Amino acid sequence: MAATPYQQLEDEFRRLHAFRGALAVLRWDAAVMMPRGSGELRGDQLAALEAECHGVLTSPKVSRLIDRAQANASQLEDWQLANLREMRRERDHALATPIALVARLAKAAARAELRWLEARRENRYADFAPHLEEVLALTRDRAALLGQHLGLAPYDALVDEFSPGTTSAEIDTLFKALARRLPALAREAIELQAAKPSLPLTGKFPAGRQRGLCVEVMKAIGFPFDRGRLDESEHPFTEGMAGDSRVATRFDPNDAFSGLLGALHETGHAMYDQGLPKEWRDQPVGRNRGMALEESQSLLIEMLMVRSRPFLTYLKPLLEKHLGATGPEWESENLYHHLTRVQRGLVRIDADELTYPAHIVLRYELERRLLSGDLKVADLPEAWNEAAQARLGLKPATDTEGCLQDVHWAVGRFGYFPSYALGALIAAQLWEKLRSEREGIDAEIARGQFAGLFEWLRAKVYSVGAKMTVQELLKEATGKPLSAAPALRYLEAKYLEPR
Amino acid sequence: MAATPYQQLEDEFRRLHAFRGALAVLRWDAAVMMPRGSGELRGDQLAALEAECHGVLTSPKVSRLIDRAQANASQLEDWQLANLREMRRERDHALATPIALVARLAKAAARAELRWLEARRENRYADFAPHLEEVLALTRDRAALLGQHLGLAPYDALVDEFSPGTTSAEIDTLFKALARRLPALAREAIELQAAKPSLPLTGKFPAGRQRGLCVEVMKAIGFPFDRGRLDESEHPFTEGMAGDSRVATRFDPNDAFSGLLGALHETGHAMYDQGLPKEWRDQPVGRNRGMALEESQSLLIEMLMVRSRPFLTYLKPLLEKHLGATGPEWESENLYHHLTRVQRGLVRIDADELTYPAHIVLRYELERRLLSGDLKVADLPEAWNEAAQARLGLKPATDTEGCLQDVHWAVGRFGYFPSYALGALIAAQLWEKLRSEREGIDAEIARGQFAGLFEWLRAKVYSVGAKMTVQELLKEATGKPLSAAPALRYLEAKYLEPR
Repeated sequence: MAATPYQQLEDEFRRLHAFRGALAVLRWDAAVMMPRGSGELRGDQLAALEAECHGVLTSPKVSRLIDRAQANASQLEDWQLANLREMRRERDHALATPIALVARLAKAAARAELRWLEARRENRYADFAPHLEEVLALTRDRAALLGQHLGLAPYDALVDEFSPGTTSAEIDTLFKALARRLPALAREAIELQAAKPSLPLTGKFPAGRQRGLCVEVMKAIGFPFDRGRLDESEHPFTEGMAGDSRVATRFDPNDAFSGLLGALHETGHAMYDQGLPKEWRDQPVGRNRGMALEESQSLLIEMLMVRSRPFLTYLKPLLEKHLGATGPEWESENLYHHLTRVQRGLVRIDADELTYPAHIVLRYELERRLLSGDLKVADLPEAWNEAAQARLGLKPATDTEGCLQDVHWAVGRFGYFPSYALGALIAAQLWEKLRSEREGIDAEIARGQFAGLFEWLRAKVYSVGAKMTVQELLKEATGKPLSAAPALRYLEAKYLEPR
Repeated sequence: MAATPYQQLEDEFRRLHAFRGALAVLRWDAAVMMPRGSGELRGDQLAALEAECHGVLTSPKVSRLIDRAQANASQLEDWQLANLREMRRERDHALATPIALVARLAKAAARAELRWLEARRENRYADFAPHLEEVLALTRDRAALLGQHLGLAPYDALVDEFSPGTTSAEIDTLFKALARRLPALAREAIELQAAKPSLPLTGKFPAGRQRGLCVEVMKAIGFPFDRGRLDESEHPFTEGMAGDSRVATRFDPNDAFSGLLGALHETGHAMYDQGLPKEWRDQPVGRNRGMALEESQSLLIEMLMVRSRPFLTYLKPLLEKHLGATGPEWESENLYHHLTRVQRGLVRIDADELTYPAHIVLRYELERRLLSGDLKVADLPEAWNEAAQARLGLKPATDTEGCLQDVHWAVGRFGYFPSYALGALIAAQLWEKLRSEREGIDAEIARGQFAGLFEWLRAKVYSVGAKMTVQELLKEATGKPLSAAPALRYLEAKYLEPR
């Protein structure tokens, strides 16, 4: 029997999936293994494979098959229908942006990233500005084309790539709710904790021992080391392929926790990727549902689960076993205070749960103004510093700790920042529901039993893949649309408790 | 100005080169880094990329461009002409074998390799035989199609893939010359060395220290660690991409030399790959000139350079520095006797320079009979054992040390074995000429100065790429066609010297 148009489409997307898996290995290798001098060669390989992926999605064959499959949609089951919808979505995004523009942007971004690294190191924004200008101009073209094609405002079209189905109107509402409450909450938390400071955690913690600790905890959590790895890299990251998850973290010998927190954040991503529906693994509907949901899964582990008394009860003997950490400062209550310390700061990646959203709102507002042309690249440092004063209560002394701190804009990742804050909201909403449905969860975690937690996440989040929107998924899982209320309830309970 | 057909061809083959580079990274990763459970996923990625490469080569577009470029050949320079010839060669090989057959063979080979591993471990040839049967049948189809297309006998068509331009008539002549002299030479060498045995090299040599030794020697040789890596794997190998050479070896803590010899053999491959003409790196004419020449470059380093008194003079203090090896047995003269010991044996990869060719001749004769159908798969063990008795003077007690010892046939690599022996002949012929042209070479090597050696190889071999056939290259470099005479002179001088 001849293959139906829908079946032929599955074959085409299976091929696309294989190319994307190859791209993931090449990117992981570039970050962790590749010799320094082989970057240009690797760039050619990545570009050729990306062009191939774009070519599959924009081929007349695929569009013809999509139309024919659509015409016979009544014969498809619900997963197949959702898959067809996601195929169309990917095709639409690809068709909207010609490969020549994608390639120019990739080259400009590669140059800009190198200049950004130098400019940040030497605090010379002016050297970076022309490169940001170029990336921004190309991103603006791309956003305009995407927006036209998808019927969205340009900025919303960029957001739609990272967080499908999310609009800036929705983000505005959520961010407003956070901005209304968080600054006061952070002030109160800082006052409260000033009354009872935590003991400092000092010592030397060799990378090999920290690695041993990470591996034991990741194994307990269920990270499948037969289908994944843990490596070291400059920055923590996960190269997510369901079936082969590569987690990387960075070990600081003076800090017992940063390597572990990085590894467990990334393990959250990896658990999501590994839990995606197996039978749809090589199809669009079997992919993750965007960056906000991805980030919710890493934050749920790193922030909500790890920075909790039950988890630290479980962790305490492991710190002694692997790092030889004993003494009053290593008691779980002190660890808890250490890991939930609130502090004003200028650097996003060092921020705590209470001040983190302000860093995102600041970037969200500035990137929209940059994209619209309302803010000139030359005026970014001043605008950043003003916003930092207003949102964070601090003014950067240098651009290095100001507008040069993140790589995202250099590489054209406009519209990405909101995912971090949305992820935190989603995580809190899922966490609240999970705890109401599984009463014994704290006791389980304190005993190092994580199966119940991940069973729930697998059922409600992982196994859904891209079948629903994030909004639908949350409605199914928690009975409510996404809101800031669970996050605010969670943060108030955690940070305003009397110490 | 519009691109000429020839320029368009270069673009197509540039894309092909990027895909092949990606394939090399994926294969390296599978051998060194990949989690055990991710093999199936990786198999899909490799198959998709291989199909893509086959698709480029067999596309009507490429054939059309080749015809049009050929029609305007008078406008091409000599490197371009050679490149066009190699493009056609690759296209012809691909056109001859339909992708469906390639894919079936790849799947059958993957299955057969697993069964071969088990069968070898448990000495159960019967379990492996049906899989070898399947691979052989598909290889026979492939050889017949290739042969028809290229106007060659089926076996010669397979040889042509690994050693372009070499025929079995030529191999027969060379192997006969070896078979005439080597058995007697080996007997004499064994008698001579029995009169003066070498002191055993015992001790414990941790992998980390052996690695340090390898890195220092590889750096001295000129291996570019900014465009290459050294890792550990089950078996030594090189994944050769000019611009990113990945060498792997295996460290045995009871053996000071096997890890180093493996690493330096592979470094010989890597130096060749890195020395290929830079400006043609992404084109067919910039690729290596087949497996026989590849093997000549690794053997020239491992056998002719390393197993020599000058090199061991250089190495002695490094063995002390890295492995703490001191005492009379670590004097360079004893090391030389140790590394040039001749011994009858059943296992090819453990064989010395004098007995190695007999292992190859044995396989060459049997694989031709298997391919022609003259020898049945069921009768292979008996035929092997008879040939081993005749050629090696020993009879295997088990198939594990007999016909199950190599992976090549399991994965369909018929026609490959001759490359090893041809490589040894080429290496000796180049080595003889090199030494006659550079008088001070021994003194240079003894001082750890390898620039002169590699300068010669770069000029005569590496920089030629695939511009000439091996036969032409040897004629240019040594003034003579390939013959067994230089190898026999070299072996007699080395192994019949009075000790």
